[in-house]
Amino acid sequence: MERHFDASLRELKEQLLGMAGYVERAIDNAVHGLQGRNPAKIRSVYEIERTVNREQVTVDESCVRLLALQQPMAVDLRLIVAIIKINTDLERMGDQAVNIANNSERYLALEPLKPLVDLPLMFDEVKGMVRDAINSFVRRDEALAREVLRRDDAVDELKRRIFTDVLAAMKGDPGRIDAGICLILIARNLERIGDHATNIAEDVVFAVSGEDIRHARREAP
Amino acid sequence: MERHFDASLRELKEQLLGMAGYVERAIDNAVHGLQGRNPAKIRSVYEIERTVNREQVTVDESCVRLLALQQPMAVDLRLIVAIIKINTDLERMGDQAVNIANNSERYLALEPLKPLVDLPLMFDEVKGMVRDAINSFVRRDEALAREVLRRDDAVDELKRRIFTDVLAAMKGDPGRIDAGICLILIARNLERIGDHATNIAEDVVFAVSGEDIRHARREAP
Repeated sequence: MERHFDASLRELKEQLLGMAGYVERAIDNAVHGLQGRNPAKIRSVYEIERTVNREQVTVDESCVRLLALQQPMAVDLRLIVAIIKINTDLERMGDQAVNIANNSERYLALEPLKPLVDLPLMFDEVKGMVRDAINSFVRRDEALAREVLRRDDAVDELKRRIFTDVLAAMKGDPGRIDAGICLILIARNLERIGDHATNIAEDVVFAVSGEDIRHARREAP
Repeated sequence: MERHFDASLRELKEQLLGMAGYVERAIDNAVHGLQGRNPAKIRSVYEIERTVNREQVTVDESCVRLLALQQPMAVDLRLIVAIIKINTDLERMGDQAVNIANNSERYLALEPLKPLVDLPLMFDEVKGMVRDAINSFVRRDEALAREVLRRDDAVDELKRRIFTDVLAAMKGDPGRIDAGICLILIARNLERIGDHATNIAEDVVFAVSGEDIRHARREAP
């Protein structure tokens, strides 16, 4: 028979996954709205993000309740602490989706810079990181979480390339400065989403193995 | 006589405050290094941030240990959950200080855009928010925490003004596009630091009052 605690924990995980689903949709709609020049899709992000915000509060309440009533130990405690952090990162991914939506709305009002340089490539990469970070949590898959961490460099490299290309376009035609700034900010927003995926992957490693790898990894030569 | 738990909690708070001190110094050195065109000061940020990272791990370990060994309830539990989150926000402020340092190093290698538009003003505002967010935690001062939340709009307004001024400078002289981008990114970094101060203030309100005001406030008309 399932312990009461296990049932509560399963419910909490499902809440978190539901929230992750909304976050992924917010990011998708922001980027696809930009790519397809679809203002309605871009604006849908704002409503989805409000749902994410409500879910965040619910998840946090569940975590505090579980800590208070069940006083979990060891691996369960680590998991709940990890969920508190993952919850924050998911909500901030939602904020970044809103930032992308804002920058995309501004971009669509301007003469487009085409093509969208490497943004679609960067988007695919970041989307994959988000998906795998969430999957690593679901499956308690430490190897997959560590795989997410390794992909961060590719995203940084794409961002650098986008910056270079956009700067060149802006210098070639100062009439494109406003549009260029929008794309640079969107690349930054995507980079931040990748960072949050990385944070989630680190929390998964911590929850599964008890090892705090956050700065050990970042400070490697 | 002080309970063992109270002593541990006091120690944890002191750890967090020590870390906050490093974070404030990292932000100061990044911005003053830019303002004073002082590369050594800018580079000092990288070392300080490594200290912040180490402190973050220590604070998190203390939180998990306190939760496991003392199984705190109600207000103590809320405080520890708040500290877990504040710890994350402080560490990310440190990341933003590093971003400011990076962008400042790039900026100093270029023909300067002078004056630094409203960046010094924005810096003072953000610095005040960080200070008061930390003070509101130390004093368990809900009113001060709510005051921090209200100041976020002023920071956003300054950022908008900086964007407008820098864009105008870039359009007036495309030779300044690279320098302009640096300042725009620094303004974004400062805005993010202000957001983290806001997050901390929200966590203080939660810890003190048990009220989760995060999205109630943000979604007010």
